[in-house]
Amino acid sequence: MSNKTFDLIILGAGPAGLTCSIYASRFKINHLIIGKTLGGTITEAWKVENYPGFKQISGVELGQKFVEHAQSYGLQIIESEILKVVKKEKNFEISTLDNKSYPAKTLFLGLGTKVRRLEIPGEQEFLGKGVSYCATCDAPLFRNKDVIVAGGGNSAVTAALHLSEFANKVYLVNRGEKLSAEPIWQEKVLANPKIETILNTNITQIQGKNFVEKCTLDNGKTLEVAGVFIEIGVMPAIDLIKNLGLELEQGDLIKIKPDGSTNIPGVWAGGDIASTMHGLEPRQVVTAISEAAQAAISIFKFLRKS
Amino acid sequence: MSNKTFDLIILGAGPAGLTCSIYASRFKINHLIIGKTLGGTITEAWKVENYPGFKQISGVELGQKFVEHAQSYGLQIIESEILKVVKKEKNFEISTLDNKSYPAKTLFLGLGTKVRRLEIPGEQEFLGKGVSYCATCDAPLFRNKDVIVAGGGNSAVTAALHLSEFANKVYLVNRGEKLSAEPIWQEKVLANPKIETILNTNITQIQGKNFVEKCTLDNGKTLEVAGVFIEIGVMPAIDLIKNLGLELEQGDLIKIKPDGSTNIPGVWAGGDIASTMHGLEPRQVVTAISEAAQAAISIFKFLRKS
Repeated sequence: MSNKTFDLIILGAGPAGLTCSIYASRFKINHLIIGKTLGGTITEAWKVENYPGFKQISGVELGQKFVEHAQSYGLQIIESEILKVVKKEKNFEISTLDNKSYPAKTLFLGLGTKVRRLEIPGEQEFLGKGVSYCATCDAPLFRNKDVIVAGGGNSAVTAALHLSEFANKVYLVNRGEKLSAEPIWQEKVLANPKIETILNTNITQIQGKNFVEKCTLDNGKTLEVAGVFIEIGVMPAIDLIKNLGLELEQGDLIKIKPDGSTNIPGVWAGGDIASTMHGLEPRQVVTAISEAAQAAISIFKFLRKS
Repeated sequence: MSNKTFDLIILGAGPAGLTCSIYASRFKINHLIIGKTLGGTITEAWKVENYPGFKQISGVELGQKFVEHAQSYGLQIIESEILKVVKKEKNFEISTLDNKSYPAKTLFLGLGTKVRRLEIPGEQEFLGKGVSYCATCDAPLFRNKDVIVAGGGNSAVTAALHLSEFANKVYLVNRGEKLSAEPIWQEKVLANPKIETILNTNITQIQGKNFVEKCTLDNGKTLEVAGVFIEIGVMPAIDLIKNLGLELEQGDLIKIKPDGSTNIPGVWAGGDIASTMHGLEPRQVVTAISEAAQAAISIFKFLRKS
């Protein structure tokens, strides 16, 4: 058990959390990051082409650069699963899986998202046996095989493109009548002979013996595939912090003010877990880091007053 | 005279304009950037240490990376001074110094800022003869000489630090009772034996024969210096676009909605020229690029409907 109270604890080690830390370090705010995945969800991105300054960079590399930048100020990152976040009388207390607890005056929530599931028979059963939520991680396992990607947004379409470098054939199965990915990605899919797009269609069942062998679609067809990549979106990772009484909006996103503060005094949020209040595309690195920087500035002012 | 109507013209080639262009290119929006300084004002920054992904990079290099990123999509940048921006019946028209005009359906204003002047005797007269608004550009000219930096914010303090690498002595003269720069910069100033901070003091006059020789302060003292670096802040560069009838706030910043749109249909803005509506620190690269990305997304939706 640690007794030292931090001025700030940052939950989540993705672009938002790491940027909040970079700014906090420059403001000399005594703080800590606790996160399970160094670099955050961006590390699962095959290629990032819209983070200004890097024409093209893998998500892993970009995440690593953010981590190194934050660490260059001597920051300690606790790589551990967070078990509980509790509001005490004056402070907040974070408990981790390794049985430690960390008190903090303020919190920045940069916990990002968790994947959305299809909720169909076979999905759970064949997880890791052909079913995957991370094309970037698992694509090389499907060399010369046929695979399905479920979804039609940026993550699904880039997953299909990435998989086409390995797989024999990629079915991009989208329940909507058109793809919603950026036009530049859609063009690349159209030009790729290995990718077949199937619209207005749902996957209803995943079957096999030990590993995935086929998928049933609601258009009456069955596809023989070895892999099913589910890229139908994400949900804000709010389970751990629900008990704080945070105001949510737009499908469980944390409602933040322009300075990143929430309805709970002492708690700020930013990145994919927060509502940008814009009704625009969420999940942009540039938006996450801007929100995080503004939150750090606001936390700095708050701590100076307290 | 060019007759082709662009879907979007971006005014300003700094981080905001270039990021708007990166996103616009990915959305396949037919567009153009017109700007006088490739890379924008950030190119005048001595060191940038808070743009996530680059632990430390010169402003020139960071600006160059943004330019190259935008150009990698085949974008054309018109490096020219903008003379006039006019709203026509359906379109906008931009006239440049080289006597060309460019029509556009929508505009993104990323024109940034222009420097604030002390407005004291000698300032205009000795411009380029010892008076400078860009320490990064001119510091090497003052090797082994004594110089003054006017101001107390981040730009003044980093200017003083940069100048201390060349000059014999740097006086940091601030009219306020304390410096307002980030604590990490203030620490570096305190630890630097070449820098002497003078608070609660104004410079009242700059004198010399052909070049700057001395400055009079309102504390009764006179400092013999060869250079005066004025780093007292900036003003939004709105002169060119005042006639559009844009709503302004917080000292002539363009009022933008969360999606970057302004009160004039078809006109978006972002970066240092826009009010972030946060009452927080403006002039952060991360904020500028986030605003620009959101504007591009909003422009994409607008054009699809029109």
